[in-house]
Amino acid sequence: MDTASGSPATLGSVDDALARAVELARRGPAWGPNPRVGCVILAPVRDAVDGAAPGPRAVLAEGWHRGAGTPHAEATALAAAREAGVDVRGATAVVTLEPCNHTGRTGPCAVALEEAGVAEVVYAVADPNPVAAGGADHLAAHGVRTELRPTAAATELTHAWAASAAAGRPYVILKSATTLDGRVAAADGTSRWITGPAARAHAHEVRAVVDAIAVGTGTVVADDPALTARHPDGGRADHQPVRVVVGHREVPAGARLRTEDGGELVHLATHDVTEVLAALAAREVRTLLVEGGPTLATAFLRAGVVDELHAYVAPLLLGAGPGAVGDLGVTTIADALRWRTHDVRRLGDDVLLVARTHPSPAHPSVQEA
Amino acid sequence: MDTASGSPATLGSVDDALARAVELARRGPAWGPNPRVGCVILAPVRDAVDGAAPGPRAVLAEGWHRGAGTPHAEATALAAAREAGVDVRGATAVVTLEPCNHTGRTGPCAVALEEAGVAEVVYAVADPNPVAAGGADHLAAHGVRTELRPTAAATELTHAWAASAAAGRPYVILKSATTLDGRVAAADGTSRWITGPAARAHAHEVRAVVDAIAVGTGTVVADDPALTARHPDGGRADHQPVRVVVGHREVPAGARLRTEDGGELVHLATHDVTEVLAALAAREVRTLLVEGGPTLATAFLRAGVVDELHAYVAPLLLGAGPGAVGDLGVTTIADALRWRTHDVRRLGDDVLLVARTHPSPAHPSVQEA
Ligand SMILES: NC(=O)c1ccc[n+]([C@@H]2O[C@H](COP(=O)([O-])OP(=O)(O)OC[C@H]3O[C@@H](n4cnc5c(N)ncnc54)[C@H](OP(=O)(O)O)[C@@H]3O)[C@@H](O)[C@H]2O)c1
Ligand SMILES: NC(=O)c1ccc[n+]([C@@H]2O[C@H](COP(=O)([O-])OP(=O)(O)OC[C@H]3O[C@@H](n4cnc5c(N)ncnc54)[C@H](OP(=O)(O)O)[C@@H]3O)[C@@H](O)[C@H]2O)c1
Repeated sequence: MDTASGSPATLGSVDDALARAVELARRGPAWGPNPRVGCVILAPVRDAVDGAAPGPRAVLAEGWHRGAGTPHAEATALAAAREAGVDVRGATAVVTLEPCNHTGRTGPCAVALEEAGVAEVVYAVADPNPVAAGGADHLAAHGVRTELRPTAAATELTHAWAASAAAGRPYVILKSATTLDGRVAAADGTSRWITGPAARAHAHEVRAVVDAIAVGTGTVVADDPALTARHPDGGRADHQPVRVVVGHREVPAGARLRTEDGGELVHLATHDVTEVLAALAAREVRTLLVEGGPTLATAFLRAGVVDELHAYVAPLLLGAGPGAVGDLGVTTIADALRWRTHDVRRLGDDVLLVARTHPSPAHPSVQEA
Repeated sequence: MDTASGSPATLGSVDDALARAVELARRGPAWGPNPRVGCVILAPVRDAVDGAAPGPRAVLAEGWHRGAGTPHAEATALAAAREAGVDVRGATAVVTLEPCNHTGRTGPCAVALEEAGVAEVVYAVADPNPVAAGGADHLAAHGVRTELRPTAAATELTHAWAASAAAGRPYVILKSATTLDGRVAAADGTSRWITGPAARAHAHEVRAVVDAIAVGTGTVVADDPALTARHPDGGRADHQPVRVVVGHREVPAGARLRTEDGGELVHLATHDVTEVLAALAAREVRTLLVEGGPTLATAFLRAGVVDELHAYVAPLLLGAGPGAVGDLGVTTIADALRWRTHDVRRLGDDVLLVARTHPSPAHPSVQEA
């Protein structure tokens, strides 16, 4: 059976199975073109451990998706059941995301579940991807009971991926690191360090789970950043995001972006944010972290494509120096760009405020659910 | 016995008694010239409930200070014991603050405890007030065992008062309410509302526990604030802070500061922060909340007298508009004004960052303890 140690032999309810499926899904990579998905196959109700529903039900198999080019979570679970000689006819498949109905690198999971004789499919998030959607309809048309059973944890798991799939462009996270008075540097340009080690370590953790990081050529020239994802001890993270430079100027030959190992370097000689997003979407970038500087940040904000803010705020005051963003074309308070706070976290002396668009226009499926 | 319902009959340890004393102290007012103090008198060890130390000990009496002009916590507890006919000879008095050694509105508590025959006094915070200090020395000189036993809760209880007593000036809290890019208003001057209802309600709660609020004449002219402490339903808080206006311009005759009931109105026609603090210290102001505007905030920051920041930050971006502070004379990052984060709290979509001076120069007793 395709499970890690600690797999439960039984689960008390479908909700427990959904929570377990989320746990499995989290073992997959957060980056890459595919969402993280987990699947638990529960024994038919007639086989329930205590003889009667809704008592605990045996876990027949588990699976999760390990990233593009590998089998989907449902296929993994079905394969595990086959290998273990377990009969899944009449069983309930509990999946974090609606099974796909599309032959991509793998066959459609909806078909595989139906052909395996699964009687019921419970899923937490409808597939927002126009190409892959329709799995639930296929199952229903073939006599498989389906239930959409949203949970906050499963929704969160696919939030960025689903928004990207629905909008047809990368999910954009804009990062800033400022003083309490909104400065990214002092008047003389010095900015090391505004935030402390805990905030900087967190920013590297985020780099290690996104597909790409973007900066403008101004930041390349001024700071010569490597744009790698590193651990606090200096070691490199396993996953390195694509490094994107936006602007007409060349990346200098000796730049650390060229000399230091890291994600692929992509130079987009344009000022057009839509063009940047289209080029990255074509490379299957689903989450893009925009790290600045102010000119690039302002361009993304003015284009209205910032889905999430990561604002690291340090308890410092400078009173002068460049701000994190330039002119946004806003002159009155009613026109301010507003986000909804998703998470607030203290990181040493600093605060991280994670905020998202409000309401998320790129994620209608969540609002409807 | 001078206790409220729910008073414990016994306490398991001196630390429990200190925690209880803090609980009692919190019943007193946070404003006013005196600190909040709580006192628990524990039965002598020979009377311990289980016959032997360190088992639970009977609580003989409790008391707390109800504000200037009323008896101190120790005097209240001793009076309660007397009234109940309880013998406190050989007992242990557990107090959040070192008993005073000074005849002010009441007699010295150190003398009262010693004369009552108390055998031991445990206190959590040394008295930083040069006028009242020396209580522990007096007790020791008269054969009473004393122990300084610092606890975080007791230290926090007297933090602002102790800093004020040590520095001989009000403890200054600077409030700001800004966007993520540090703006207090949009380019056209509109600022209603940057923060949401939860943040505004919190700011009113703070007004209701400080002695005074200050604004510059610019804010009076621009905003015509009432500077009262109100509940979310519009009702007035029991305690109204003194309302201080700083600057040469007159407060207009029709200003809400004149027409609306609230704390006393004090107009200080000066630009000198030291003069402002001296005038308020002379009025027994221990905690001063500076609410702006930017000119007054900058003057306090430049004078180096801001002990605590209350930065309300809203997930908005404006890109333009006045900042919370003006020129601080800082040109390089190493000279930034730095605080140490004390508390981070989410208030609706907003964040409140409470930060204090680092290290607190006005509060050496805490560092030494
Ligand atoms: N504290 C922080 O979080 C942080 C982060 C990053 C950077 N910074 C600071 O920011 C400063 C650099 O600021 P910056 O604004 O020059 O950096 P930037 O935004 O990285 O680069 C600006 C350049 O990018 C190009 N560009 C790309 N898209 C554009 C668009 N839509 N509109 C206009 N130009 C576009 C332009 O260069 P071309 O002429 O080449 O096209 C432009 O000059 C540095 O001092 C750096 O230290 C701070
Ligand atoms: N969002 C917020 O948190 C917030 C809070 C408060 C105010 N505000 C905004 O701030 C704006 C007013 O700004 P402001 O800076 O004019 O307000 P201010 O700081 O309240 O008042 C400035 C005035 O105070 C006097 N003053 C007192 N001490 C001074 C000193 N040390 N140095 C110089 N002047 C001193 C001066 O007036 P004299 O000529 O009379 O001496 C000066 O013009 C308004 O638009 C208001 O809405 C925003």
